[in-house]
Amino acid sequence: MDDSRPQRKPLQAEELRSMDRYWRACNYLCAGMIYLRENPLLRKPLAADHIKRRLLGHWGSDPGQSFTLVHLNRVIRQRDLNVIFLSGPGHGAPATLAHSYLEGRYSEIYPDRGETEEGMARLFRLFSFPGGIGSHCTPETPGSIHEGGELGYSLSHAYGAAFDNPDLIVAVMIGDGEAETGPLATSWHSNKFLNPARDGAVLPVLHLNGYKIANPTILARIPHEELEALMKGYGYRPWFVEGDDPDTMHQQMAATLDQCIDEIHAIQRRAREHGDLRRPRWPMIVLRTPKGWTGPREVGGHKVEGSWRAHQVPIADPASNDKSLKLVEEWLRSYRPEELFDESGRLVEALRALAPEGARRISANPHANGGALCKALDLPEFRDYAVEVDAPATRYLSPTDVLGQFLRDVMRRNMTSFRVFGPDETSSNKLTAIYEASPKTWLAGMLESDSDGGDLSADGRVMEMLSEHTLEGWLEGYTLTGRHGLFATYEAFVHVIDSMFNQHAKWLEKAKRELRWRQPVPSLNLLITSLVWRQDHNGFTHQDPGFLDVVTNKSPDVVRIYLPPDANCLLSVADHCLRSRDYVNVIVADKQPHLQYLDMQSAITHCTKGIGIWDWASTDQDHEPDVVMASAGDIPTMEALAAVEILKGLFPDLKIRFVNVVDLFRLMPDSDHPHGLSKRDFDSLFTTDKPVIFNFHSYGSLVHKLTYRRTNHENIHVHGYAEKGNINTPLELAIINGIDRFSLAIDVIDRVPALRGVGDHAKERLRDMRIEHLNYAHTEGIDSEQIREWTWTG
Amino acid sequence: MDDSRPQRKPLQAEELRSMDRYWRACNYLCAGMIYLRENPLLRKPLAADHIKRRLLGHWGSDPGQSFTLVHLNRVIRQRDLNVIFLSGPGHGAPATLAHSYLEGRYSEIYPDRGETEEGMARLFRLFSFPGGIGSHCTPETPGSIHEGGELGYSLSHAYGAAFDNPDLIVAVMIGDGEAETGPLATSWHSNKFLNPARDGAVLPVLHLNGYKIANPTILARIPHEELEALMKGYGYRPWFVEGDDPDTMHQQMAATLDQCIDEIHAIQRRAREHGDLRRPRWPMIVLRTPKGWTGPREVGGHKVEGSWRAHQVPIADPASNDKSLKLVEEWLRSYRPEELFDESGRLVEALRALAPEGARRISANPHANGGALCKALDLPEFRDYAVEVDAPATRYLSPTDVLGQFLRDVMRRNMTSFRVFGPDETSSNKLTAIYEASPKTWLAGMLESDSDGGDLSADGRVMEMLSEHTLEGWLEGYTLTGRHGLFATYEAFVHVIDSMFNQHAKWLEKAKRELRWRQPVPSLNLLITSLVWRQDHNGFTHQDPGFLDVVTNKSPDVVRIYLPPDANCLLSVADHCLRSRDYVNVIVADKQPHLQYLDMQSAITHCTKGIGIWDWASTDQDHEPDVVMASAGDIPTMEALAAVEILKGLFPDLKIRFVNVVDLFRLMPDSDHPHGLSKRDFDSLFTTDKPVIFNFHSYGSLVHKLTYRRTNHENIHVHGYAEKGNINTPLELAIINGIDRFSLAIDVIDRVPALRGVGDHAKERLRDMRIEHLNYAHTEGIDSEQIREWTWTG
Repeated sequence: MDDSRPQRKPLQAEELRSMDRYWRACNYLCAGMIYLRENPLLRKPLAADHIKRRLLGHWGSDPGQSFTLVHLNRVIRQRDLNVIFLSGPGHGAPATLAHSYLEGRYSEIYPDRGETEEGMARLFRLFSFPGGIGSHCTPETPGSIHEGGELGYSLSHAYGAAFDNPDLIVAVMIGDGEAETGPLATSWHSNKFLNPARDGAVLPVLHLNGYKIANPTILARIPHEELEALMKGYGYRPWFVEGDDPDTMHQQMAATLDQCIDEIHAIQRRAREHGDLRRPRWPMIVLRTPKGWTGPREVGGHKVEGSWRAHQVPIADPASNDKSLKLVEEWLRSYRPEELFDESGRLVEALRALAPEGARRISANPHANGGALCKALDLPEFRDYAVEVDAPATRYLSPTDVLGQFLRDVMRRNMTSFRVFGPDETSSNKLTAIYEASPKTWLAGMLESDSDGGDLSADGRVMEMLSEHTLEGWLEGYTLTGRHGLFATYEAFVHVIDSMFNQHAKWLEKAKRELRWRQPVPSLNLLITSLVWRQDHNGFTHQDPGFLDVVTNKSPDVVRIYLPPDANCLLSVADHCLRSRDYVNVIVADKQPHLQYLDMQSAITHCTKGIGIWDWASTDQDHEPDVVMASAGDIPTMEALAAVEILKGLFPDLKIRFVNVVDLFRLMPDSDHPHGLSKRDFDSLFTTDKPVIFNFHSYGSLVHKLTYRRTNHENIHVHGYAEKGNINTPLELAIINGIDRFSLAIDVIDRVPALRGVGDHAKERLRDMRIEHLNYAHTEGIDSEQIREWTWTG
Repeated sequence: MDDSRPQRKPLQAEELRSMDRYWRACNYLCAGMIYLRENPLLRKPLAADHIKRRLLGHWGSDPGQSFTLVHLNRVIRQRDLNVIFLSGPGHGAPATLAHSYLEGRYSEIYPDRGETEEGMARLFRLFSFPGGIGSHCTPETPGSIHEGGELGYSLSHAYGAAFDNPDLIVAVMIGDGEAETGPLATSWHSNKFLNPARDGAVLPVLHLNGYKIANPTILARIPHEELEALMKGYGYRPWFVEGDDPDTMHQQMAATLDQCIDEIHAIQRRAREHGDLRRPRWPMIVLRTPKGWTGPREVGGHKVEGSWRAHQVPIADPASNDKSLKLVEEWLRSYRPEELFDESGRLVEALRALAPEGARRISANPHANGGALCKALDLPEFRDYAVEVDAPATRYLSPTDVLGQFLRDVMRRNMTSFRVFGPDETSSNKLTAIYEASPKTWLAGMLESDSDGGDLSADGRVMEMLSEHTLEGWLEGYTLTGRHGLFATYEAFVHVIDSMFNQHAKWLEKAKRELRWRQPVPSLNLLITSLVWRQDHNGFTHQDPGFLDVVTNKSPDVVRIYLPPDANCLLSVADHCLRSRDYVNVIVADKQPHLQYLDMQSAITHCTKGIGIWDWASTDQDHEPDVVMASAGDIPTMEALAAVEILKGLFPDLKIRFVNVVDLFRLMPDSDHPHGLSKRDFDSLFTTDKPVIFNFHSYGSLVHKLTYRRTNHENIHVHGYAEKGNINTPLELAIINGIDRFSLAIDVIDRVPALRGVGDHAKERLRDMRIEHLNYAHTEGIDSEQIREWTWTG
């Protein structure tokens, strides 16, 4: 006997018939969305001018998804379950939209698409129509927290939603195309991080639809034994539902879902009542159905149902081809809409009863509108973690080490709504203090030796897996369901999630700007650390500060970039970000010991302004400056200050203004970004005609990109990472990229008219010093201690 | 009996003893690299000043990697195999370096690090030393085509190297940390794309080292049955080698490697002699050894061998702590260097005999210096694929459709050295003609219905899997071993491989600029298509042209960006890219029908210059222009031309110069990029004082980033993607982002002093037209046909 298929047939004839009708209603709506602009209930014979002018949308995965939703509704009703649904398959929105519409939720939110014949016509017309409804589950889709535009993240999003939601079951449909992506392939392992006592459950439904756009899928074309082994290897208990006969499939799916829910509840009981936190084998379902199931079998002599040809629009030309029009009509009428919808166009009463009610409806579950459930973090007073700074630049400290202490106490006060994420680097990134509040989540095997500093526990709240994709997906799922978090990662490797960032920013922008019913969700906080300038020892591959360029391409409504120059500024910025909503906050701060500049009060003032003159480092008091030295980022700030110190020694009368930038978007015009400085404020800081030497953390061109419309732009000379690196010392790396104190001082001498000629000897000496330091590094393997003497000392 | 472990003990006592000594020599060198600046053979008692000032490097995975290499050498010698080795674990370079050094190859390339005591000392000193040798397998490492800085790509690189190399065995060590990444997790499925007759073999060795930087690994902490199921589920035949007793492990590893090589040869014989192309279960090895194997067992009361504490430098402070110094000395002496190296410091003769000879040495295998084996493509005459253009802008064609015909014949002429890669989108991207030359590679299951347009075959050469990571990894491996290819992908989702692009560009830069012994390899050609401006119907998630920003951050020595405006230009650019070496070429070209502008001869001239005035579209003949209309990209060019047409109708005397940019880096100063225009040439095109309206394919700020130092920069007004989109029509999408003909014409009226006031009425009319078109789109769901009338018509 096959132990991967339950043998029961739980559905009574009447129930089966009703569920099948409900499913037919879904499928009818899906096909209607793709084809019809008029005559939504086919009360007239279908005519060419009822057909949309441009046929768009994806039929292929809709029936399988609808089928799953119909069956989820059954168990939700029967057991009063709390379930949300994530639709992984790229463009299968019609299925989710149809369910949402049948449940009445869609019309509650969009009253112009009511439960009437006219409302249905409008839904159909707006689908995949300019200015209308997207063909995948966009933020506009009620009940959704997952957009399938870019594939790969459904399962990690699902786990993110399940963490700390003990009563929630997150059903997630994974397309077999999506399953080929890297991010999806590794996210199966998320089950080693789900605690059955504390967290909810994830129920993956791998949809073996068989085909992608134009190809079979890998997982649909490996033998049953291999697929079963793969799922068992990933740590699941797989159940198979396979076939195409609706009646048989309904019984199979009902029995399988009953089985899975029973298993989930048994696992949770063992954990919650008996304290058994050993990693369970969570159930998952493999649903193999024909692509475009119940659609046209054959068109023009080609197989369509059960083929890649069913992926999008199965019949291409009904408006211009009578035969095709007839085929479409036959297909649509095969669902018998007259049995499904009443006179007014509303789903008949008998079928309405199959949907759950109120907030139990998948389309209305509040977890999928996470802002509605979101509670502000209980934050400790960040000033209490302040570093003493008696005088600027007299003390070295690791900023992230200080931040770790704050985060530790954030964690302690919010033990069910805050998590920290990092790819095996939380400790490397000096956030180690967090472990005092909570160990790392770990439900894979443990060894006795783990007790010695392993910091592992099923109850841990620090999430570490060597997959930036999975971590980002978890955090997105966690915040979209209304909870808070921070993801710390090596700067160079944050590019791994460029595309995930892009998609999340797009989601936030739509939700924030266009959807009043979506409540604001906690911001996604990215701490970019192990920065380029201190990846001197790891070499060229670990040096890439270009993520900021990606971030600045996204909407000003949703992205923020902060470069706190020291630990107190980092605390102030972190507190601000943890309170904010609906942003992606990118915080750039290093883990190595760095000089500290500002006491807490000054740090708060500075970070609140986001940009400002550091009087204590300037020499232009009460005068127009000869030159502005600006900086953004910790190491660039230290080098810029050291350059000022050098220049003060060389040219005591030189008027230097020192400007530091924390909030990068301050550089943009206020017309382009809400954080942008007005023309007047920018000009008063940077002057309208004096040279500005700007020492920047990232690629220099980014500063030009942000400031090219500023009055004094021609005079802004940016030093930044120039894509030069190897195994280096810190100063050597700064020198070869030209952000070091010597290069900056030379640039000042070159740019200030009064120093031309006068400064030639100094320039020569500074050039020699650059070479001396390079030689020292290459002989001794470290930077000379003398470097610290050149550091600004107040 | 356990069938996952061969039971034989193939090693005679003497052979085992020799191999173990060779392994000790490797391990000694690895530890030496991390610690010693002097006294490399411990001929004196170890003193604090023999220790490096800054201890850097990674010990953890070295012994396991060395162990594998020692055993690979045995089978290479015994069977005269052709083997390359890819080292996946991040920072395990010491193992590869040690082998390369012991094989003499390292000293052949770097004679200053000869096989003498002084040479060894220099190798040790330079390792992880400023300006010296990287701690992962950088391009400087002989025998390597894979850098482990960013994790996840070793297995896809390995498959890329094996394709079309029937005699090659690619041994690839996969770290169990790396195995957690998404890209690695899905790349196991590459075995469904490896043809045992035509391709070489990949032998994965999953190294269950047990720990990452600070955590256990997932795969090391799941039960044996789960791991075995996972590997079987991925389609492999796993063999387990597990333990820590060297003698036992040597026998196990030797027996297992014998078994695997036998299996590989049997599979290849079945395929090559008997035509059996069914997908075989290729062997793979799970090697479970303690992290830091043979290193210090315990330090300061903490377990080190077999723990995450062995990841980097196991004993931290030997220079300042006598006890630690003694520990290091004991550890190093445990390898008995005096038995391994002769008086001069060279590996003793008896051990040298264990290494393969000449090009069979893994460190000297020519496949790992692919440029040395590379043959130029046999290219058909691209002019033969030219599209007839009797008059500009009179004909619509899909540029990629035309390119597909050229690529089809490139494929036909190069059936062992050219492949095309794409994530299930080759057909969607209109490159369908390629299938006439070769179907898609497919060794997973086939169905009868596949014969109807499935285009699948074990002999196919079009590589399609829904994983951009895997495709990019395959292509990198394929080109680094000297073969040619092109990867076509949706523009928005090329961000998925941002970080892979970054790392490959870094590799190319180092190899090209600093390593004369590395021969130039074929460029990596990325065709970015399904462009933002025609993702109107797919919506916001499919609209992201920001990859170009990422590309422009990389070294000018290795990156090129081309935006051919039509099909003939695309052919010319493609021909150029396929001939080039050592670049990443990014070609931006859409798949939808677009207007054609240039006949082939004009296209060649235009693309060779990379930028130029289109006289036929300009109205400034023999005059200074009043305004420059510039464009880059197909849709922006069409809109800019239509704007000119509108303006000609409105203001017949207006002098408009039309400039089109194909080679984006022409915009940069020649001091910053080898393709940059001189100041004089730029100024003569764009004037020094006239308004320039620049209609750009991507985010507008990129043009400012490239041109901010140009004389007339203040007057350059860029229109580009402004991060606004939904389900739209093409013109609607252009309008809401302001790159449409109406917005451009309005901008010209605003910027040209002579039109101020005069143009007010026209502006009003143009604004109305924008609104009319938006209304039409929202009513009809398509763009008005009238749009074509507004198109430039010569």
